[in-house]
Amino acid sequence: MSSATRFLEINEPLLMKKGGHLASYTLAYETWGELNSESSNAVLILSGLSPSAHAASNAEDPTPGWWEGMIGPGAPIDTDRFHVIALNSLGSCKGSTGPASKNPATGKPYRLDFPALCVEDIATSAHQLVRGLGIEQLCTLVGPSMGGMSSLSYLQQFPEGARHHLSISGSPNAAAFSIAIRSLQRELIVSDPTWNNGNYDDKNWPVKGMRMARKLGMLSYRSWQEWRTRFGRREQDYFPTELFGMNYEVESYLEAAARRFVRSFDPCSYLYLSRAMDWFDVADGYADLKAALAGIQLKSACVLGVETDILFPAYQQKEIADALLANGIETSFANLESLMGHDAFLVDYDHFNPHITAYFNSVWYEDSL
Amino acid sequence: MSSATRFLEINEPLLMKKGGHLASYTLAYETWGELNSESSNAVLILSGLSPSAHAASNAEDPTPGWWEGMIGPGAPIDTDRFHVIALNSLGSCKGSTGPASKNPATGKPYRLDFPALCVEDIATSAHQLVRGLGIEQLCTLVGPSMGGMSSLSYLQQFPEGARHHLSISGSPNAAAFSIAIRSLQRELIVSDPTWNNGNYDDKNWPVKGMRMARKLGMLSYRSWQEWRTRFGRREQDYFPTELFGMNYEVESYLEAAARRFVRSFDPCSYLYLSRAMDWFDVADGYADLKAALAGIQLKSACVLGVETDILFPAYQQKEIADALLANGIETSFANLESLMGHDAFLVDYDHFNPHITAYFNSVWYEDSL
Repeated sequence: MSSATRFLEINEPLLMKKGGHLASYTLAYETWGELNSESSNAVLILSGLSPSAHAASNAEDPTPGWWEGMIGPGAPIDTDRFHVIALNSLGSCKGSTGPASKNPATGKPYRLDFPALCVEDIATSAHQLVRGLGIEQLCTLVGPSMGGMSSLSYLQQFPEGARHHLSISGSPNAAAFSIAIRSLQRELIVSDPTWNNGNYDDKNWPVKGMRMARKLGMLSYRSWQEWRTRFGRREQDYFPTELFGMNYEVESYLEAAARRFVRSFDPCSYLYLSRAMDWFDVADGYADLKAALAGIQLKSACVLGVETDILFPAYQQKEIADALLANGIETSFANLESLMGHDAFLVDYDHFNPHITAYFNSVWYEDSL
Repeated sequence: MSSATRFLEINEPLLMKKGGHLASYTLAYETWGELNSESSNAVLILSGLSPSAHAASNAEDPTPGWWEGMIGPGAPIDTDRFHVIALNSLGSCKGSTGPASKNPATGKPYRLDFPALCVEDIATSAHQLVRGLGIEQLCTLVGPSMGGMSSLSYLQQFPEGARHHLSISGSPNAAAFSIAIRSLQRELIVSDPTWNNGNYDDKNWPVKGMRMARKLGMLSYRSWQEWRTRFGRREQDYFPTELFGMNYEVESYLEAAARRFVRSFDPCSYLYLSRAMDWFDVADGYADLKAALAGIQLKSACVLGVETDILFPAYQQKEIADALLANGIETSFANLESLMGHDAFLVDYDHFNPHITAYFNSVWYEDSL
């Protein structure tokens, strides 16, 4: 956990969409920049599946965050102008309450006793954070990836919750292909013999299952287009003797990325958040997406997608933009030609910075009118 | 095994590219249509990773084959005109010698004692079949998927081996993304506790590993575009009680497809063929692809790819077509707008038939001049 992480304890029950509840819970977050006297310049970032609240370095923790280049003085999300808040999602394992947290009823980790978690619950809890910080209305709600889903639910539940919205590689619902990928990732984890129906411990921990699930994740986060130029057919310096060893650079890249992830993320958290995304459909119970987003009181929205994204394909961002526009919200949409797939917003600053800088400039300008 | 399958025993050693050898081996194949008196109308089909030699129904076995709609009287590959031969690849487990075959030296299955297998070895053995059938030169060599790789090697090794060539969703070499997918599939198989370093038996068989590897295969064979319309977010009629059960249609489709595959394909064969594809680069040792294919004496070639293929992306077929053209071979290329990804040639007859019909008409016409 970053030393910059703060915690808000919420001691009222969270009634969850699928029927369970949490009697109390903790939300982990970090902030950058000053909240102005009217509390009107807050930017809340709802994250993807795995990030912590440490989105960028700050005085308390100078180590780079997961969106280091995006947040800071003079950065696209300019902390000289905005008070930025990044939240670790409910259900995660980076400080917010999730399946790895201690269940007050038993004194042991919840694991599979954690109630079924929906994206809607993540959004509800995020609103509790905003309230808890004394903020009436967000200036801008930012949601990349799963955070794009949580943002839509946030705005649906709290139609005046934000004046502006930046949606990045998000989705109004989970696509069949994405469900299939996540379903297989979960199967990999629960097929690990040490999974033991959630009763793993530090010694017997589903390392293999998590490693392979992460590799499959990486396959879905990037693109063949990127790896064509990045790795091609380059081989390693070493040639393992085993017949089916890994001697291509792309294989060792995946192995290294997966090893970094394993043990740093709780398997139950992974399963809960993964399934929450599958279940999400913001139009569930509505005639269509336009109807689902009707009533949202945004002044503006910016929706960004990436041409090579196979996990949250760009047509999904177009659907969001179209539905917001159809509801009379000033909305811009761009399908970026990045090669870096779903993860582009984390790594391809060249393609993202101009759009995000321009959007926050317009937000600043519109709010100052 | 189909009752229509024939076997050619080859009792001279196959010296393999990576140094091992097979003292003798068997090739399983099927045929349709008559070989003409000049033995000039033979069409050889080299297959992808998993198909048997039963590409289509015939008198001996009326059950549909894996390319049923493509081969037959009046079909795109018209058996009233052509003598069609389909070969089960060396290294497979559908009648041709592979890791599951009995090692004559030990009387037990080869398993990991099978020599390292390359696509080039598959091509060399295919040429032995053609020779064994008394055919001097093929009319047309057809290679879909891995068969596209084997075909290029065949033509490189035997530059006058065919007058015409149809390459479908093939590749001059394995792409980084494809290596990554196959590497993870292999890892899934060898991580199954019953894998036991290749010493599985019918009772202890890597069912889970193979099932999950096949699901990952399906993800790479199809596309999000197809599944968007085919499955969407439709749920099953049943709702499993487990928290992480499979209640979306796409999940049960994958489960059913994987179960059909498991136990019908040998895990060692899978590993050997999978790695053979990774290793393949027809330009290995040459200045470039044009140089690698120089000398090939084709009268014509047709190269087809599919826009949504992420495993053998269409740029790879374009590279093949460009290199053949650069060598003065009359070559047509089409990037089909099918939604069905790499597997489109197996299922999307609407997109493929017109091209394949037209190509074989031109082959027939050119050869009759």
